[in-house]
Amino acid sequence: MDRQDIDAAAARIAPHVVRTPVMEVAGFGLPWPVEMKLEQIQHTGSFKARGAFNTMLSGKVPDAGLVAASGGNHGAAVAHAARALGHRAAIFVPEIAGPAKIALIERTGADLHVVAGEYANALQAAQAYEAETGAMQIHAYDSPATVAGQGTCLREWEEQGLTADTVLIAVGGGGLIAGALAWLRGARKVVAVEPETSCALNAALMAGEPVDVEVSGIAANALGARRIGRICFDLAREFEVQSVLVTDDAIATAQRALWQERRQLVEPAGAAALAALMSGAYVPAPGERVAVLVCGGNIAPDPLG
Amino acid sequence: MDRQDIDAAAARIAPHVVRTPVMEVAGFGLPWPVEMKLEQIQHTGSFKARGAFNTMLSGKVPDAGLVAASGGNHGAAVAHAARALGHRAAIFVPEIAGPAKIALIERTGADLHVVAGEYANALQAAQAYEAETGAMQIHAYDSPATVAGQGTCLREWEEQGLTADTVLIAVGGGGLIAGALAWLRGARKVVAVEPETSCALNAALMAGEPVDVEVSGIAANALGARRIGRICFDLAREFEVQSVLVTDDAIATAQRALWQERRQLVEPAGAAALAALMSGAYVPAPGERVAVLVCGGNIAPDPLG
Repeated sequence: MDRQDIDAAAARIAPHVVRTPVMEVAGFGLPWPVEMKLEQIQHTGSFKARGAFNTMLSGKVPDAGLVAASGGNHGAAVAHAARALGHRAAIFVPEIAGPAKIALIERTGADLHVVAGEYANALQAAQAYEAETGAMQIHAYDSPATVAGQGTCLREWEEQGLTADTVLIAVGGGGLIAGALAWLRGARKVVAVEPETSCALNAALMAGEPVDVEVSGIAANALGARRIGRICFDLAREFEVQSVLVTDDAIATAQRALWQERRQLVEPAGAAALAALMSGAYVPAPGERVAVLVCGGNIAPDPLG
Repeated sequence: MDRQDIDAAAARIAPHVVRTPVMEVAGFGLPWPVEMKLEQIQHTGSFKARGAFNTMLSGKVPDAGLVAASGGNHGAAVAHAARALGHRAAIFVPEIAGPAKIALIERTGADLHVVAGEYANALQAAQAYEAETGAMQIHAYDSPATVAGQGTCLREWEEQGLTADTVLIAVGGGGLIAGALAWLRGARKVVAVEPETSCALNAALMAGEPVDVEVSGIAANALGARRIGRICFDLAREFEVQSVLVTDDAIATAQRALWQERRQLVEPAGAAALAALMSGAYVPAPGERVAVLVCGGNIAPDPLG
């Protein structure tokens, strides 16, 4: 994965994705301003549309269409991109995706399967469907085309004038942060933020290799990967990512602050990176400028559902 | 009111307000893209903080502090600015401000008075308070310092690269659109969008002078001025503003679309300008580029309240 792959992805997906807005704001009880990119404004409410479009536009999609397993956001993105490009899509989600994300996928008209258990169970079902039908599997985080697509997010932010020394990014399976690391290649510091209750990257860095973890907590349907992606793990080691953990309470506090101070209503995963600053899990050095990627907005219950 | 007044206001308030983000997006069932400025990200959830700060920073605030009457958003902005600058503030709101906006003002620690009736009744009570105490009244829309402050919103948008031929702006008492007209001075077309149920500018343009109207409907606490401001009326005639009306249903549809498509949860007033495009109340000419100012996000009930 090099920067040209991400350049190519950006050119490929440009007609299909939102150039999401950025801002710099003071507040959140912090003594310095924070740059933010509001990526939850992306189609289907998360960055996942970038990887989904890039994958579908990178090769020939079979007549059997696409299949994806997802905690909800990736499935919605694949369903949306498939509809936009005229493909069939089968989406497998675990029950913990929740009614708001399930309704979001239903609205796209995709062939939706709700599976008992967690993300790993949905992935198993999706792999069985792939073997039966010949549909193209779009992995939620551990494929080069997905990672290159997610990498366009940081590329775009730099085009929009990002100045921060350090970018904080929430991590589930690691597709978004892998794309960021592959784009930045050490030019800015990257901090990986995970809930204490779903911390596959942190556990892998401690163990020296990807290992299975238990997942739970308020962000589990978005960040609850049982094992970190290999692409993410290798990039995290190569570029010496700093891993920090936040509590569910800290995430809920940041989620409330984003709404009360900036009228951005996001899901817990979308507030996790900010939570690392507000809770002191990550403390910048004097003069260090920081940026927070707001990555998902599919909150449950849906306030207008 | 000339552009230098707005330049001066922008310099005065710069340290105190958010430079709110802008974007261009396709969607909303429209065949062309729309530029948007997300001004509900401003402090206290609406553009009103601009005028409040500009007024307080334009002259000496008496020891008795500030007083304001408001459907909710202006009161919250005055309360916020007063606290930021170390002044006392008394805020008079009508009951229809609703619990979410009342709670927002309470959180600032202002001296809050909830008055029976509508905005005009709150204004009467605020004027009595002003006469008794010597507090400085900050009018919600019909004072030069308020209008110059609100004018910084369009000034900022042009700095951020606004390209639209036509800007759609929701109108209550007319402070925001007056500021926009005073800044643009005919350089772009301005469309005034009002609910059929609260249309003081439309009625004034029909009558040839400001007249009293009945106010009701889902946006009444933000757009329900009984009579359009004189400053707005004069600028609307000078620059030949186009007045369009939207139904409450069209506003609710646009509000839902902003959430479902772009994860921006706004109050009805904040969706009114978009409603004019989605409902066909305003139809651009072929090739005409349009922009929508999203002006307020203080929805009730508060989804995290």
